[in-house]
Amino acid sequence: MDKPSLPSGTRDFGPEVMMRRKYIIGIIEATFKRFGFLPLETPAVENLKTLQGKYGDEGDQLLFKILNNGDFLAKADETLLQQRDSKALTPQISDRGLRYDLTVPLARFVVMNRDKIHFPFRRYQIQPVWRADRPQKGRYREFWQCDADILGSQSISNEADLLQIYDTAFAGLGLKVNIRFNHRSLLDAFAPWLQGTANHNRFMQLIDKADKIGFDGVMNEIKNEGIPNGEDAWTLLHHISGLADTDQKLIALQNAEAIQNDALQKGITEIGQLLNLIKNLPTANTLTLDVTLARGLSYYTGMVMEVVPADNRIPADFRIGSIGGGGRYDNLTGVFGLKDVSGVGISFGLDRIYDLMDAAGIFPQESMQTTRVLFCCMDESAMPTAFAMAGKLREAGIATEVYPGAAKLKKQLDYANNKGIQWACILGEQEITDGTISIKNLESGTQETLPQNQLLAHIS
Amino acid sequence: MDKPSLPSGTRDFGPEVMMRRKYIIGIIEATFKRFGFLPLETPAVENLKTLQGKYGDEGDQLLFKILNNGDFLAKADETLLQQRDSKALTPQISDRGLRYDLTVPLARFVVMNRDKIHFPFRRYQIQPVWRADRPQKGRYREFWQCDADILGSQSISNEADLLQIYDTAFAGLGLKVNIRFNHRSLLDAFAPWLQGTANHNRFMQLIDKADKIGFDGVMNEIKNEGIPNGEDAWTLLHHISGLADTDQKLIALQNAEAIQNDALQKGITEIGQLLNLIKNLPTANTLTLDVTLARGLSYYTGMVMEVVPADNRIPADFRIGSIGGGGRYDNLTGVFGLKDVSGVGISFGLDRIYDLMDAAGIFPQESMQTTRVLFCCMDESAMPTAFAMAGKLREAGIATEVYPGAAKLKKQLDYANNKGIQWACILGEQEITDGTISIKNLESGTQETLPQNQLLAHIS
Repeated sequence: MDKPSLPSGTRDFGPEVMMRRKYIIGIIEATFKRFGFLPLETPAVENLKTLQGKYGDEGDQLLFKILNNGDFLAKADETLLQQRDSKALTPQISDRGLRYDLTVPLARFVVMNRDKIHFPFRRYQIQPVWRADRPQKGRYREFWQCDADILGSQSISNEADLLQIYDTAFAGLGLKVNIRFNHRSLLDAFAPWLQGTANHNRFMQLIDKADKIGFDGVMNEIKNEGIPNGEDAWTLLHHISGLADTDQKLIALQNAEAIQNDALQKGITEIGQLLNLIKNLPTANTLTLDVTLARGLSYYTGMVMEVVPADNRIPADFRIGSIGGGGRYDNLTGVFGLKDVSGVGISFGLDRIYDLMDAAGIFPQESMQTTRVLFCCMDESAMPTAFAMAGKLREAGIATEVYPGAAKLKKQLDYANNKGIQWACILGEQEITDGTISIKNLESGTQETLPQNQLLAHIS
Repeated sequence: MDKPSLPSGTRDFGPEVMMRRKYIIGIIEATFKRFGFLPLETPAVENLKTLQGKYGDEGDQLLFKILNNGDFLAKADETLLQQRDSKALTPQISDRGLRYDLTVPLARFVVMNRDKIHFPFRRYQIQPVWRADRPQKGRYREFWQCDADILGSQSISNEADLLQIYDTAFAGLGLKVNIRFNHRSLLDAFAPWLQGTANHNRFMQLIDKADKIGFDGVMNEIKNEGIPNGEDAWTLLHHISGLADTDQKLIALQNAEAIQNDALQKGITEIGQLLNLIKNLPTANTLTLDVTLARGLSYYTGMVMEVVPADNRIPADFRIGSIGGGGRYDNLTGVFGLKDVSGVGISFGLDRIYDLMDAAGIFPQESMQTTRVLFCCMDESAMPTAFAMAGKLREAGIATEVYPGAAKLKKQLDYANNKGIQWACILGEQEITDGTISIKNLESGTQETLPQNQLLAHIS
């Protein structure tokens, strides 16, 4: 018999991992709710028509496609079959695929339910997505996204909410982060100087690589490509990004003659509005205007944000990119025929946050919500008594088990220790006779014997 | 542009539905945890090798299969292509499929992790599964299963736990149910009388239909098929199932001469053990020994259980079958090469429970956890103050929004009413000048004006 296995790039999450994943999700979800976001879930399986053409050519290649049921070859094109043209044949034998992200399904949902939704629509969504990427460390074919978006409002107060959500959620997780933000208009302001959109797009792609290849690396590529004024623009941006605080950066932008235009003013105005809104709020993490931040996705049109870890408990050799990001997009639902719905959203990288907290060893004890009490019977005849007592503890909300059967005490205690159970409640012959119970604290090793009716008070 | 749509048999769950689904899941999950079950999640995508041959021929047909990535036709068999043999070609172009239930993935997980798992292994799992069934009312192609299983223990105390979980969870949901149980050995005891396994299997299939076609319907089919002693056996079973209580039923079984054998004794003994274990525990729902209950799945080998609604608030025309079921299986992991792991488990039919509670109108108010407070600013300049106050409410765990921008008050209050928000906190010119806030209770319609620093106490 073959050994069973998992498809490449997929994972089982056993109990210990699941408890901690649920701990992270619980804190993120509670934060979403506290800011007025309500849950949405969409199906894993979408029509390929919905998915294709939304993620670029590369994205289309990475979609998982589902074979049509039944006699899927019946109507397939004869010539394509003979030519073994997999690509051209795919649309004839597959109508559906797996969800690739949570944003396109959100847009589809909003368009399909536009008459029922009361805008501004604040929804969160925490579900897996699938991409047929080459699996590698930290990159999976099935992974989770945790998104919060607001649709149908252009107010900067939405951006302010989302920045606060990042700050609150990571504070709740006990993980120090740096929250970076920028406004695409500040970057758009460079387009005239760079002599046009094509140069500007290329410039943006290059500066997005600064995290990886550094200032000089970007400068060399700009030189190689000969982007007009690219070197001066990069020098200016880099200079501004090195300034000590947001006010200085904004002043420097105001004073940079080469980029004085409407786009610059829009960016500076909206950043000013944002900072004004949150000026009275304490933040647990650093909030930094990063004038070089572009966020790759071309659909962002306004504010962009990104979260990077900044916790000194993370091992130095543990490198990981951003653990969250988002921004404003002005035309998300346009692809499905609904115009002028502005949106802004953020995403938490659940899998990366898990890996990071695991590597830094900062999951608190409370993240392991395992059984608290195990009843150990030395004889089967004690089990109805154990069941009755366990029922009372459960009523009080205490996770409780009765070991199934009268196994040797050592075996029962091993089970408790392996599962991280704190209390073993032992019912032997003496205890049954006396109406008592012996309680062993498996953390401290102490043991005492109590009247059975004092058990609940003792455990609570 | 095409209107976007959903694949047949799949659903979006918008905020109102999601809140109620989460309410149901929350109660079931809390119950699982209180009985010492820990979470497991397995990938949606499994190797077809893992799934195929586990659910019968029909099940294999209903698996959703994923097209291999890349040039999937490159190595396909020429003859099969020419013959357009969809079925024979499938294994050459598809290696993976979508999860069909949670039981086979559990077995695979246990076999792959046998060295790390501490038995008895109590896990719960709440995830969607996919079946390419013909969609109809109450039957979906993507639907949820909520399973709890215990592997590696033959003690009847596990069955006792699972019955209690059903009782506790449905009590928590406020839904009255009837919990039926039986032991497959009681039915096996009929095999010699029916002259062999083949007759017995057919007999079991027929009596499983009694809910649908009634006593006479089953009797007619037994006659037509000429099962030896089948009519007498069905008359006896039906007579016993009509007796008033479990004791009478067990006595009648003990006195039925035609079925005296080891199987009968095993069934009676284990039912006695089960009832003894829970004799000291109160139950919220009726627990009935149903001697005709077989539960279709052939892998059950011991106790079987089933939950049917018994709530007089359910509309008479709302027909639905069981909303939960399970039982003991002695050889679940055998298909993956790990012998002698006995298991017992139950499942909750989440989608049916939702439909039922919705039809009966018994979702409590608390199942709609929406925003509680909306700040309404009459001028943009009030927003930083609103943000600061909202921050304080959120810190206290109160779900709070600041309406994005200074829209007309009517528009803001409409938004609050549509979202079911209880409190509107209004900041107009006067309030800002006075350091006060006007609070409107949108349920009662009352409004009052308070000093801003009294808001939290007032809302709490």
